[in-house]
Amino acid sequence: MASELKDLSRLAVHTFTNKPWSLAECIEHYQAAGIPAMSVWRNVVWEEEGGVGIDEATRLVAASELDVVAYVRGGFFPAPDQAGRDEAIDLNRLWIEQALALGAEQMVLVTGAVPGLPLEDQRQMVADGTAALLSLCEPEGLKLSIEPLHPMYAAERSCVNTMSQARAICEQLDHPLVGVACDVYHVWWDDRLEQEIALAAQQERLFAFHICDWRSPTRDFLTDRTLMGEGCIDLRQIRGWVEAAGFGGYNEVEIFSEEYWAADQEEYLEKIVRAYLDVS
Amino acid sequence: MASELKDLSRLAVHTFTNKPWSLAECIEHYQAAGIPAMSVWRNVVWEEEGGVGIDEATRLVAASELDVVAYVRGGFFPAPDQAGRDEAIDLNRLWIEQALALGAEQMVLVTGAVPGLPLEDQRQMVADGTAALLSLCEPEGLKLSIEPLHPMYAAERSCVNTMSQARAICEQLDHPLVGVACDVYHVWWDDRLEQEIALAAQQERLFAFHICDWRSPTRDFLTDRTLMGEGCIDLRQIRGWVEAAGFGGYNEVEIFSEEYWAADQEEYLEKIVRAYLDVS
Repeated sequence: MASELKDLSRLAVHTFTNKPWSLAECIEHYQAAGIPAMSVWRNVVWEEEGGVGIDEATRLVAASELDVVAYVRGGFFPAPDQAGRDEAIDLNRLWIEQALALGAEQMVLVTGAVPGLPLEDQRQMVADGTAALLSLCEPEGLKLSIEPLHPMYAAERSCVNTMSQARAICEQLDHPLVGVACDVYHVWWDDRLEQEIALAAQQERLFAFHICDWRSPTRDFLTDRTLMGEGCIDLRQIRGWVEAAGFGGYNEVEIFSEEYWAADQEEYLEKIVRAYLDVS
Repeated sequence: MASELKDLSRLAVHTFTNKPWSLAECIEHYQAAGIPAMSVWRNVVWEEEGGVGIDEATRLVAASELDVVAYVRGGFFPAPDQAGRDEAIDLNRLWIEQALALGAEQMVLVTGAVPGLPLEDQRQMVADGTAALLSLCEPEGLKLSIEPLHPMYAAERSCVNTMSQARAICEQLDHPLVGVACDVYHVWWDDRLEQEIALAAQQERLFAFHICDWRSPTRDFLTDRTLMGEGCIDLRQIRGWVEAAGFGGYNEVEIFSEEYWAADQEEYLEKIVRAYLDVS
């Protein structure tokens, strides 16, 4: 069991947690709250998704005092044909350039999935796609963290659904820049979680730790995560495992919640900080 | 990969698949369709849940030509206190009496879950609860099959979410009447599925095989399963593993679908039979 968090020195917030805010607003409010780091989502950066553009985003981030933990998110490698897989890799190359411009330490990979393709074949496509990106990452040492998503996303969002599957891909590639992002939302139910966290850390492949809570009952497959302490995940236990394994990175708050997105974001950020200190 | 199913000799249908039908209607239509077996759900039997009562249900089943594969479902063992756990065991005793009266070969156990209780402790409550029922099952040889449910149900429905966890409880109890029900809907994503099926069968603990399909995208956590062939599960592959492991029981069709419940049930049953032969 982890001990209480005494300050915000290891807190990072994902910009998508405060989806109604622009990148500039996220930066302003996170800094004002004393939060030292953030993970930046594509939608506030990439013009194609409504962002301010990579030049403006880079300027905003460089002018801020915030660490950029991760650029979120690349991946989505599986496709039925080679042309589709090549296209995915090209897109990832673009996102990696954005991650590098922002000075992110890592880019999170959501692996992607195609309904009906054998999961085993898809995982190989993830390994191949990740491998194809490494030469672009090596000069600056940008890490790629494969994030296993909950098995409820196995059909169309992520063919990697457990820490063990993510770690298997890391072992196959055996490259110091390829590791695992552990998000409690996706893996809290797994009876091998403690062991998998320890193994990943031991292999120097535990790159990220994301927190939020599992709302019970959950009303939506995607956008009903909740604030730490408002669900059924034993966060202190899992953070205890992560810290016992030697992880020294940020605790990244990543919450998708229609309910909280509809609320006043400043008050919500205050709640996040309080929940971080009180129950995370 | 399993070979094509040539006839209906191994087909069973769960009455809940045709939720709009009463037990009498299920029996009438399954027989007319040449289906040799069914699994009977509590809601068409137990008066407390709107059923015809155990006496009438027993009479209907005895007068039919259908095998009763399973009575569905007992379980729901975890509770925060001993009184709650004792109450769960008492309810299961009642359901076992119903299963015995119906001449079911087995009773399926959905383990239950309580949000926030440690999953490991809850799994022990499942083991304890199951053990407490065995003396009632032994005289007639009624089997109890623990069904792992998808990890998306880990908070409030099932603390057992993988074949491996179910098998661990079986190994702990080590009793010939305690085994596993493998439902493709819950376990299709698991990379250890083939191995787990083989192990369960080898230990003579593979008691049941349930089929349906995972609709992509899925719109509801509970009632959006779909007909075999309309989703992304490779049914022939999994049935191949089950048969290679030596399982010789029924292929039980268990579909919860608001969409199909709203349709004409006779036409739907024809579709089930066709999908069973064509793609299962």
